[in-house]
Amino acid sequence: MERLPGFRDFYPEPLPANEPWSCDLRNHIFARWRETARRYGFREYDGPPLEPLELYTNKSGAEIVAQLFNFVDKGERAVSLRPEMTPTVARMVATAERAYKKPIKWFSFPQLFRYEKPQKGRLREHFQLNCDLFGEADPGADAEIVALLIDVLRSLGLTSEDFVIRLSSRQAWQRFFAARGGDPARAYEFYQVVDKIERERPEVSAEKLQALGVSLTDVQEFIRASVPEPELQVVLDNLGARGLGAFVAVDYGVIRGLAYYTGIVFEAFDRKGKFRAIAGGGRYDQLVHQVSEGKVNLPALGFGMGDVVLAELLKERNLVPSFAGAVEVVVLIEDETLRADSLRLVQQVREAGTAVEFTLVATKGDKQFKRALELGARQTLRVERSAEGTVAVRIKNLRTREEQVVPFDQVIAALAGAA
Amino acid sequence: MERLPGFRDFYPEPLPANEPWSCDLRNHIFARWRETARRYGFREYDGPPLEPLELYTNKSGAEIVAQLFNFVDKGERAVSLRPEMTPTVARMVATAERAYKKPIKWFSFPQLFRYEKPQKGRLREHFQLNCDLFGEADPGADAEIVALLIDVLRSLGLTSEDFVIRLSSRQAWQRFFAARGGDPARAYEFYQVVDKIERERPEVSAEKLQALGVSLTDVQEFIRASVPEPELQVVLDNLGARGLGAFVAVDYGVIRGLAYYTGIVFEAFDRKGKFRAIAGGGRYDQLVHQVSEGKVNLPALGFGMGDVVLAELLKERNLVPSFAGAVEVVVLIEDETLRADSLRLVQQVREAGTAVEFTLVATKGDKQFKRALELGARQTLRVERSAEGTVAVRIKNLRTREEQVVPFDQVIAALAGAA
Repeated sequence: MERLPGFRDFYPEPLPANEPWSCDLRNHIFARWRETARRYGFREYDGPPLEPLELYTNKSGAEIVAQLFNFVDKGERAVSLRPEMTPTVARMVATAERAYKKPIKWFSFPQLFRYEKPQKGRLREHFQLNCDLFGEADPGADAEIVALLIDVLRSLGLTSEDFVIRLSSRQAWQRFFAARGGDPARAYEFYQVVDKIERERPEVSAEKLQALGVSLTDVQEFIRASVPEPELQVVLDNLGARGLGAFVAVDYGVIRGLAYYTGIVFEAFDRKGKFRAIAGGGRYDQLVHQVSEGKVNLPALGFGMGDVVLAELLKERNLVPSFAGAVEVVVLIEDETLRADSLRLVQQVREAGTAVEFTLVATKGDKQFKRALELGARQTLRVERSAEGTVAVRIKNLRTREEQVVPFDQVIAALAGAA
Repeated sequence: MERLPGFRDFYPEPLPANEPWSCDLRNHIFARWRETARRYGFREYDGPPLEPLELYTNKSGAEIVAQLFNFVDKGERAVSLRPEMTPTVARMVATAERAYKKPIKWFSFPQLFRYEKPQKGRLREHFQLNCDLFGEADPGADAEIVALLIDVLRSLGLTSEDFVIRLSSRQAWQRFFAARGGDPARAYEFYQVVDKIERERPEVSAEKLQALGVSLTDVQEFIRASVPEPELQVVLDNLGARGLGAFVAVDYGVIRGLAYYTGIVFEAFDRKGKFRAIAGGGRYDQLVHQVSEGKVNLPALGFGMGDVVLAELLKERNLVPSFAGAVEVVVLIEDETLRADSLRLVQQVREAGTAVEFTLVATKGDKQFKRALELGARQTLRVERSAEGTVAVRIKNLRTREEQVVPFDQVIAALAGAA
């Protein structure tokens, strides 16, 4: 029985052949995500992986259903595995915003699901860090979110030589479109054409733009120049004051596909251009109002960062740490009459917070020692009985091969001193 | 738009009214689960939340489908949200066991899904710690798993006055049934009657047992005496050597409902008997063989512990820690001409690993200070410009109200000294 296509098993390291997804690397990424969000004062939340289908069709239209894992449950409810987190967090904030001081700064890293053709860097599920800020319309909030995105990537060892945040503005494009007599009702249609320009043949883009009353040359020139409009200059200045100027560049080629963005938008890319976008986000000031059916009105912005492209980038840049040494101490049991004392020792060392392994059954001593080396343990411990019948513990440092024998009740202190 | 019945939103503390599920408490439980498993040398894995439906019907029969969130996906595959983790981990181990030294000791805390009538302590989803050990038939492995279960609960502050592990044995019941002439083919049927004895009317149990050739009185007497059979005595002795004897008691009233258990079984209960089982598990030596269609044969055992009953128990015993003080430092900006310098300060303190908040827009100084107190911050920092135009930083300790002014480039050192 195999797993479903597009889904992943995460194995502990060292990884089996043909199983590329490491639970250790995943957890390393999760830990950096959580720790960086914490430093920025963001608080963690989570929502259900299964939601009413309407939550997504209301926001993105019925055409999104083709990409969903949706079904009718046993209570006749139309439901869907969550394809993104923003509708869920907008619902949660709309429900409970009165309990929180503004701005609300929240993060989560849900697993998300899309029924898509599986391909490199694009599976049917991924984990996505979502950081969102609610209740602040000032561009200072946009700068805070972009700074967090930069520091999340830096926390994984990536530098300004590895990635850049391409910063753009829906308002800038709105003004561009209006200045050329574009029909405001067709603005989103226009954004979608711009969004596809880098991927589509020029003739196709040109024809679509012409139908909207805009020339491809004009659009290309606006992107090429990418002159910072005032709303972007404020964000650039703010990031500059933080010393993060080298991580960001204005690029109107970024516009984002989703309908709900209303202001600044941005994407993180590796500088070599080898991967898909690492992360993307922007301002969506109307979404809470829409999801709450007009009850709550809060400006909002945020970003999402998936684990798949990120893991591939970290591997390519040799930024995956070693996960050896999860076991710190191995207790050797070479004399089965000392098993009870050895078990007592195992328990004591574990209670002191140390990761301990030992053989569950009678095993040759050299085999146990070899296993300790394979595990990358720091020390081995061995209970020894003196001539008088008291028990002591021999501690061996596996790096230096130094040994010492200490009374049983002094093991924890001796290990703490040696560590 | 509301969330689906039986599903939870996890909010950051302080919690809104009518939203009882704290993401902070959930993460506290997750952290203790992970840390304790690590001390026992268990390694983390994860699998897909969506699996082929067959993975569950092969193991538990077609009747399980009534309790599943199952559907047919857009590729015509019969699939199901995972109702338990054991089939997934058995599949993963069967696929990759050759890459790992035995015994394989793995843990995970997946979210699981069952289509059940929502009721207190029983929702349609929960998170469940799963710890499993593969490749060791010796009862030393059973003791290691039970010891881990005990220490997971202890890591959350629970003591031997709060909970007990009720230890039983499928083999003991098998011998009991055989000694009374029971038909071996109907042994599982017999276990299911025993499993329900505590919850069913005596007449009902007696009638069912009679049909199997066993008297209710005999069964009740065997449970009441709960004399340790040899396979349990070994485990008790092992746990005793670890100093964990007070946490465990033989109780043949425990037999576990699932079909796949083959040896020792156990459940963790609160001593006051106020809650459902906190955790349960046992030995399932045939399951890997079955899931791998005969390709791999590994003895195995493990347990599962859900987050719902556990969270309720921790609340009832006042073992939920305070989650205040997530923000450690607040940078006050009372003079907007110092915002750029203040942003530089925020960045520096965050880069040193500290959680920092500051106002994103011009705000009255007393309001900012009040917010710092509400957040439970340790310190406030304020950039000050001297008469000569250089900038310095005023550090205020919010506990002692002591203040000091240090040069900008000495803030990190001063904070490290004060912490």
